[in-house]
Amino acid sequence: MATKTPLLSHIAVVLVRPKNAENIGAAARICWNMGIERLILVRDSLPEREPMAKMATHKAAHLIDTLELHSNLEDALSHFSIVVGTTARRGRQRFVHQTPREMVDALLPQLANNQVAIIFGPEDTGLTNDDLKYCQMTSAIPTADFSSINLAQAVAIHCYELQYGIIHARKDMAPAPQLATSFELESMYTYLEKSLYTIDFIEEVSCAHWMGTIRNFFNRITLTSKDANIVRGICKKFLFHTESNLG
Amino acid sequence: MATKTPLLSHIAVVLVRPKNAENIGAAARICWNMGIERLILVRDSLPEREPMAKMATHKAAHLIDTLELHSNLEDALSHFSIVVGTTARRGRQRFVHQTPREMVDALLPQLANNQVAIIFGPEDTGLTNDDLKYCQMTSAIPTADFSSINLAQAVAIHCYELQYGIIHARKDMAPAPQLATSFELESMYTYLEKSLYTIDFIEEVSCAHWMGTIRNFFNRITLTSKDANIVRGICKKFLFHTESNLG
Repeated sequence: MATKTPLLSHIAVVLVRPKNAENIGAAARICWNMGIERLILVRDSLPEREPMAKMATHKAAHLIDTLELHSNLEDALSHFSIVVGTTARRGRQRFVHQTPREMVDALLPQLANNQVAIIFGPEDTGLTNDDLKYCQMTSAIPTADFSSINLAQAVAIHCYELQYGIIHARKDMAPAPQLATSFELESMYTYLEKSLYTIDFIEEVSCAHWMGTIRNFFNRITLTSKDANIVRGICKKFLFHTESNLG
Repeated sequence: MATKTPLLSHIAVVLVRPKNAENIGAAARICWNMGIERLILVRDSLPEREPMAKMATHKAAHLIDTLELHSNLEDALSHFSIVVGTTARRGRQRFVHQTPREMVDALLPQLANNQVAIIFGPEDTGLTNDDLKYCQMTSAIPTADFSSINLAQAVAIHCYELQYGIIHARKDMAPAPQLATSFELESMYTYLEKSLYTIDFIEEVSCAHWMGTIRNFFNRITLTSKDANIVRGICKKFLFHTESNLG
């Protein structure tokens, strides 16, 4: 029952600051079980190979040997246009959480023209709000009272839903357009933030709050590359204009 | 987002001859995540507590301390009336495999009146045909070419589907009747086998084959306790009658 689809090659699993090498290996194994070939690590260094390779088994050991390593999340995500944050926490954040199944349903029309990163936080703390700011969607696995799921098992449930959703997707679905990459969005936000500083709309203490609200707004309308470049262009022009006037 | 339903108390996860204590602990953690409180071990002895408890985390450690231990699968299953075997293998067996989601859909109407065991085989070999003979259903997780899924992750995907299916189940579903327990079925099969020997329908070499076919037939029609007792009663009467005539 081999089921493989080119859409799976548009998906990467990103482990953010994982502590245990075994979990990285177990994530590699389930990725390979489900036909997902890109595993990205955000971490200061690669952990020892042996415990990773052991959990990956020899069948998925090549994913361990081709692990992409990045020291920060922003770099790791730069080429992706859809970033999904996985979290156990509910209610405290500004995000609308979906179940993994709802997340996959929302993702399906986007997959043909976009690269998607599913990001998982460290075993003990999960993703921080600063990690989640790159995410257009979040996914929380429904649980009973005890909501903290083992990292490798959370990866397994998400990979399973992704593969299941993709192989059962309607064939006549209209594909959504290519969206702005994380790199294009972050560049836009940088100029937007500078501009809002310049006009004293935001200041040091309120910056994170307002930029969060603005990110939320743009996530709702899913920007294309062109959209992001227009917003960035306007901000750049405004900053140039203001500086010229000051000078 | 606490979601707990009394139906989850009708489900037990049964680990058959697991090798690694860590997998037992990880299974306990995901069971507790998903509101499943019965974890059964079929094994000669309990493994060391420490590695199990570590993976279970202190939140699910009580499942480790209340593990039900049985030295054989038949005893472990005696009180269950629905047994689901999980397997990666396809095509070679006589069973119709379902995905975990299809399995849960088929299970939902049965849950109100029946105790259900989901059984998982050892890490390296999975369930044997002899283990699978107790199963009325089997469930195989769809994968790409590499179909061997880590035990703790296979447990996670099944527990996730069970919990998800149950909390999203239609409330107006008519519950199916109580079915024969594994104990009642095994007792019926014992008398049936003796009877078929007596009339020379089966012999030593062909026994496993024919009994497998007969089990398959009865699994299709899902016997109640009354049904199983009638079949057993007829066989008993037949054997008594034959022995009297011989005597």
